[in-house]
Amino acid sequence: MEYPSKLLTEIVSEIAKLPGIGKRTALRLALYLLKQPVEQSENLSQAIINFRKDIKFCEVCNNISDKPVCDICSDPSRQHQLICVVEDVRDVMAIESTGEYRGVYHVLGGLISPLDGIGPSDLSIDKLIERIENRKIDEIVLALSATVDGDTTNFYLYRKISGLPVHPEISTIARGIGVGEELEYADEITLARSILNRIPFEKSIKQDK
Amino acid sequence: MEYPSKLLTEIVSEIAKLPGIGKRTALRLALYLLKQPVEQSENLSQAIINFRKDIKFCEVCNNISDKPVCDICSDPSRQHQLICVVEDVRDVMAIESTGEYRGVYHVLGGLISPLDGIGPSDLSIDKLIERIENRKIDEIVLALSATVDGDTTNFYLYRKISGLPVHPEISTIARGIGVGEELEYADEITLARSILNRIPFEKSIKQDK
Repeated sequence: MEYPSKLLTEIVSEIAKLPGIGKRTALRLALYLLKQPVEQSENLSQAIINFRKDIKFCEVCNNISDKPVCDICSDPSRQHQLICVVEDVRDVMAIESTGEYRGVYHVLGGLISPLDGIGPSDLSIDKLIERIENRKIDEIVLALSATVDGDTTNFYLYRKISGLPVHPEISTIARGIGVGEELEYADEITLARSILNRIPFEKSIKQDK
Repeated sequence: MEYPSKLLTEIVSEIAKLPGIGKRTALRLALYLLKQPVEQSENLSQAIINFRKDIKFCEVCNNISDKPVCDICSDPSRQHQLICVVEDVRDVMAIESTGEYRGVYHVLGGLISPLDGIGPSDLSIDKLIERIENRKIDEIVLALSATVDGDTTNFYLYRKISGLPVHPEISTIARGIGVGEELEYADEITLARSILNRIPFEKSIKQDK
């Protein structure tokens, strides 16, 4: 497709670099902006550049934060000996929204992915190891996605942490049948794990509020 | 959902104002930009603001163009007495890519849509009328979408143009069964139109190249 204007060609090509957005959608979005007040484009443009240039990360847990130390890490009522390791800020938000976790986090900023050329040094793993070595950590909860990259990262972290002079407990979030999910539609591996990792019934009813 | 940073809140809220993009997708896109070189965000931000602020429209046909008069309107080999009326630049690009049309265009910049508060004065209809009155136009082809808004705009234009002292022919693009489409899956209205507007077989085989 040939566009009748260089400015149009540029905006379409830049928007279409975003994941999941093709040239057609990019053109639709550009034409949409054209019909909106110029302020909307100004705000969007400004928000993108401000975010990318000025975003800061918590010095302790590496989560996105406007302050040097994020609200969670600086909250004295949280359990600072319990660290939940997650991929990115979305996982922190998801776990926080459950209201069931009172520990702190460590945000890796991605997963080890040999196919995408992402190795351990691209993630904030050294910072996590330092944290475990220097503060008295009781437990590390590995809460990564149940994907190949997630498993690779889990194993890497497990071996790395096991080799340290300090020995925090290392746990991982439970895999099983989702609440409200029907058994017959669950895949075999999930179902097998949920049987192998069964828990006392009394414990389970206590968790239903 | 509460975001741990003001900059993150802003970028998500601005991206999510785009049509068809929700807050989840907006967050995913923002985090994607964070993993890319800062130049990508700079280019995107710049392309948006340049496009919105500096985009120009052809003085004749109102299509997006970098020059005062677009390439099509300034091409002496095109038939300037034949005007195809379309909604936006995407339609011009689609018709141009067929290679079957040698006339010129008039880009309305939208459709009349009472529900969205878009009236005739929001579109470049006055400019079209002026063009028809002042240049010797032989034929106007209405090539708008077959939607309620498209039909409304078709009728409005038809009445407006019919009332002029000059009388160009007014035609509309053929509605019918798409090439390669199976008859049984076509809707009744389209099928009925394609029977009512049947054409001589010999004319049809000449169009197959």
